[in-house]
Amino acid sequence: MRTAFYISDGTAITAEVFGHALLTMFPAQFEHVTIPFVETLAMAQQVVQRINDCYKTTGLKPLVFHTFVDEQLRLQISQSDGICYDFLNAFVAPLQQELQLAPVPKTHRTHSMHEKTYDFRIDAVNFALANDDGANMKNFSQADIILIGVSRSGKTPTSLYLALQYGIKAANYPFVEEDMEALRLPPELKQHKAKLFGLTISPERLSQIREQRRPNSRYASVRQCTLELKEVERLYQREQIPFLNSTQLSIEEISAKIIAMTGLKRQKY
Amino acid sequence: MRTAFYISDGTAITAEVFGHALLTMFPAQFEHVTIPFVETLAMAQQVVQRINDCYKTTGLKPLVFHTFVDEQLRLQISQSDGICYDFLNAFVAPLQQELQLAPVPKTHRTHSMHEKTYDFRIDAVNFALANDDGANMKNFSQADIILIGVSRSGKTPTSLYLALQYGIKAANYPFVEEDMEALRLPPELKQHKAKLFGLTISPERLSQIREQRRPNSRYASVRQCTLELKEVERLYQREQIPFLNSTQLSIEEISAKIIAMTGLKRQKY
Repeated sequence: MRTAFYISDGTAITAEVFGHALLTMFPAQFEHVTIPFVETLAMAQQVVQRINDCYKTTGLKPLVFHTFVDEQLRLQISQSDGICYDFLNAFVAPLQQELQLAPVPKTHRTHSMHEKTYDFRIDAVNFALANDDGANMKNFSQADIILIGVSRSGKTPTSLYLALQYGIKAANYPFVEEDMEALRLPPELKQHKAKLFGLTISPERLSQIREQRRPNSRYASVRQCTLELKEVERLYQREQIPFLNSTQLSIEEISAKIIAMTGLKRQKY
Repeated sequence: MRTAFYISDGTAITAEVFGHALLTMFPAQFEHVTIPFVETLAMAQQVVQRINDCYKTTGLKPLVFHTFVDEQLRLQISQSDGICYDFLNAFVAPLQQELQLAPVPKTHRTHSMHEKTYDFRIDAVNFALANDDGANMKNFSQADIILIGVSRSGKTPTSLYLALQYGIKAANYPFVEEDMEALRLPPELKQHKAKLFGLTISPERLSQIREQRRPNSRYASVRQCTLELKEVERLYQREQIPFLNSTQLSIEEISAKIIAMTGLKRQKY
């Protein structure tokens, strides 16, 4: 199997995203190796040795996705036996020409706490945790968005992802079985109606997810899931609350769609 | 101000990471616009219009970072007045030649729930939440790693990031003030010693963070923070527990370093 290396003088997250996006276009399996924080020539030399050893052992030239800011380190890695794909270097020159600006390379530029928006993100994570599951309805005024939906429809992971990735403060509120008889918005939600966003999901998928939590329960039965989902969807429509069916969507996709649909302001790019 | 567009037929997360990594190399400010899920020619036409309008209004050609899988959509966006940077297209051909394989473009390939590892990640998020703050010491056997440290040293956001980004199950356990008199590992931790990873932080930074939670408290005083940190660092050294000082590090950097130091197996690339 061919080995793909992701290497950087920072976290190597950018190198991973870059390499992953390319490799998933090909119908093949790869061995993945990430080497972050390669910050000295001695460390770079070790990495070159590792790439060369991999070539010797497997007979296949490793694919090397790297994103070095430091020029010397970059050059050293380029001299390995791997096939290097260096998108920063490939695109910096044309961008420089268009912007008429010289680049100012700085290590730990992205994915570091020196990003202006870092504190926003940590605050948002703490907010999401403190306001999970309707825990703190008095904080709704500080929320950027309030996700609503039945139990296990994806509210909590989505809130956390919005916080970590975008610095968006998401509270969430669950509709529980006892609410279903005559479902309506509680006054605390009504008061912040413009911030509400509903999640829904197919009854079959919801039942599967709930089965993992409480096997063979009424709570997990398709019948109960269908009933609850029908009620909340009716509520979303009656109250004109924007909503999304998360059945086929990842949290990345749910989050991106929510931002696109609501025009929510992100704290991080 | 120059506008940067990030456009894709998926979440546009890859386009954002790609564009962001490049733009942060230049000492300039940009207006950022992300347009995800451009899935039809009609939508692509609207986006082209928006790019062209932006050029007309500002007199500056927008920078367009796009990652379309669909060839038709890609071509349509390329015909806008923006300057397009298309790293997928730039690197697919050389990679194809090296792999001797034709690419099989599929939309929603990355960042979707059809990734094999998606369920791992959601399970890991639920695990992190259920095992936050020493809540469930009986689950330590299921953890991939157990983060330990004083209150507010970064354990919870790091656990969540490890889960969301890498599908790693991280529990965490806080040492509290009452433990400090004669600090030792509780038997539940001792039993899983190989999984322990310590966090530490500078007393000044810890005090700042704690001030936000309980202003003017003993808990937040530099004196108390210094005392607690000295005790836990002594414990880490005595017990030979690997640890990291998080003062200057983002959760991305902490997570990447933990994985590099422990060799922890990731569920996602």
